[in-house]
Amino acid sequence: MDFKQELIFKAQQADKFIAERFFVNENRQKLLYESMNYSLSAGGKRLRPVLMMSVCEMLGTDFNKTADFACAIEMIHTYSLIHDDLPAMDNDKFRRGKLTNHIVYGEDMAILAGDALLNKAFEVALSNTAGITADKLVKSLAVLAQMSGSEGMIGGQVVDIQNSGSDIDEKTLEYMYMLKTCALIRASGLVGAIIAGATDDEYKAIDKYCINLGMAFQIQDDILDIEGDEKILGKPIGSDQKNNKKTFVSLLGLEKSKELVKTYSYNAIDILQNLKRNSEFLEKLTIYLIDRNI
Amino acid sequence: MDFKQELIFKAQQADKFIAERFFVNENRQKLLYESMNYSLSAGGKRLRPVLMMSVCEMLGTDFNKTADFACAIEMIHTYSLIHDDLPAMDNDKFRRGKLTNHIVYGEDMAILAGDALLNKAFEVALSNTAGITADKLVKSLAVLAQMSGSEGMIGGQVVDIQNSGSDIDEKTLEYMYMLKTCALIRASGLVGAIIAGATDDEYKAIDKYCINLGMAFQIQDDILDIEGDEKILGKPIGSDQKNNKKTFVSLLGLEKSKELVKTYSYNAIDILQNLKRNSEFLEKLTIYLIDRNI
Repeated sequence: MDFKQELIFKAQQADKFIAERFFVNENRQKLLYESMNYSLSAGGKRLRPVLMMSVCEMLGTDFNKTADFACAIEMIHTYSLIHDDLPAMDNDKFRRGKLTNHIVYGEDMAILAGDALLNKAFEVALSNTAGITADKLVKSLAVLAQMSGSEGMIGGQVVDIQNSGSDIDEKTLEYMYMLKTCALIRASGLVGAIIAGATDDEYKAIDKYCINLGMAFQIQDDILDIEGDEKILGKPIGSDQKNNKKTFVSLLGLEKSKELVKTYSYNAIDILQNLKRNSEFLEKLTIYLIDRNI
Repeated sequence: MDFKQELIFKAQQADKFIAERFFVNENRQKLLYESMNYSLSAGGKRLRPVLMMSVCEMLGTDFNKTADFACAIEMIHTYSLIHDDLPAMDNDKFRRGKLTNHIVYGEDMAILAGDALLNKAFEVALSNTAGITADKLVKSLAVLAQMSGSEGMIGGQVVDIQNSGSDIDEKTLEYMYMLKTCALIRASGLVGAIIAGATDDEYKAIDKYCINLGMAFQIQDDILDIEGDEKILGKPIGSDQKNNKKTFVSLLGLEKSKELVKTYSYNAIDILQNLKRNSEFLEKLTIYLIDRNI
C-alpha cells in the first residue's frame, strides 16, 4: 500500500462528500453560506472523516456508507474552530494560513456561521443519502451528539477556558484532552464502527484506539505549537504560551511529551493489531501522525 | 374548558419534562450546566413546547409522547436567545427580568452554553425516553434540524443583522419573520403532528396554522416593544429602535400592525376549525396571544 497516496485519496473523497452536501447556494442566505464555507473549505487535514471512513473500511464495509456522517463530523470540528477563535475565546487572527472567520465576516456572522455548521451537521447526517438503516442512523446520531456536547467536546472547551492562566495538574489536563480533542476523534471511529456493524468487542477496541490516537494527536499539537514552522502550520506558534494555556509540554517538557506521543501511538497500534482485521492503513496513519509537522 | 388553568398546567408539564431531562449535575461540568440552566429556567412562556403538546393532543395522542422534543425545542429557543443577546449581536443586558447570560457568566461561557444547549437539544431528542418509533424519531429530528438551521431560524438571524440600520421593505421583513420566528413555531407544530401520526392534509394545515400564529406572535412582539410594560416584559422597551431594527410597527404603524395581528390570528383559527378536530385549546391559545402583554 502506498500510504501517502491512499491518505490523499481518502481526504479528497472526504472533500467530495462535503462538496456534494454543502455548497454556497444562490438563495437569500448567500453570505451565511459563504461564511460557513470559508472555514469549511479552509484546507484542514480531514483527519476525522478519513478516520471514520477507514474504520468502516477496515471492518469490511464500503466507506461511501459514511459519506453523510463524515461530512457532519467535519462540520462540527469546523464550527468548534470558528467559535474557539472568537475574541471572547482565544482571540486568534489566523487559522490554516487564512484570517479567522470573525476577522473576515465579523463577530456576529462568525457566531451564526458556527451555530449554522453545528446545526447543518445534524441536517446532513439526517439526510441519510448513504441509506444506512434507521437503527444505525439513530445510534450514530446519538454518539455524534454525545461526543460533541457538554459531556464531550464543548465540555473540554469549558475546562480549557476555566483553567487558562492557572496551574493545572496532569490529571486535569488529561481530562481536558479527553473531552476537547479525543471526543470528536472517538465519534469518528465509533460512527465508522456502527455503520460497519462492529461487534461489541470491536466497538470497545475502536473506542480505545481512538482515545490513544486522540491523546497522541493533541500532545503532538502542543509540541508543534513550540517547535512547528509557522509557514507550514498556517498560524503563529507560541499561541498556547500567549494565551497562558497549560499543555503537556509546559507541564512535562518537550522530551517527555515526545515520548508520550509515541507511547499513546504504539498503544493505539497494539489495539488495532489485536483486532485481526486489515488495519494496515490505520496503523500507518497512526505512525504518520507522530511525525506530522502540520 | 378553563383555558388559563389548562395553559398553566401544560406549561408546568413542559417545565417538568425539562427538569427530568436537564439538571445541574455534580460532575466536572457544573459551571457549564449552571450557565445553561440559568437561561433555560429563566421563566419563559414555554409557548413552543405547549404548542407541540397541544397539536399532538388535538390529533388524539397523549402529549407525553412529545416530552423529549418539547424539551429539545425549548433548548433551541433558549440557545438562540443567549447568542442573540451577545455583545456582538444585540448586546442586550436584560432578558425576562434577569441579567443576560453573558453578563452573569462571561461572553466565553455564554457562547459555549448556547452551543451546548443546541447540541443538548439533539441529545435529549435522541434519548427518546417517550419511546416513539424510529421512523417518527428520524422525521421529527429532520424537521427540527431544518427549521432551526440556516434555512430556518439561524437564516432569519442573518437577515436580521444584515438589515439592521437599513431600510427594509415589507416583503423582506415578512421573509425575516418567517425564518426568525415562524420556523421554530412551525417545528413545534410539525413535530407534534408527526408524533401523533397526522395525515398529509393535517400536516400541511398545521404548518399553515403555525405560520399564521408565528407571524401574529412576532408582530405582537414588535407592538409590545413600543407599548409594553417593562416591569411585566422583564426587559427594556424600545430596544428595536435602539438597535435600529425595522419592524412591522416602524414600517406600517401601530394601528395597521394591530390589525395584522388579528388577521393572522383569525386565519390561524380558521385553519384549525377546518381540521374538524377538537381544537378548542389551540383556538383559545391563538386568541390569548393577540392580547398578551408578555
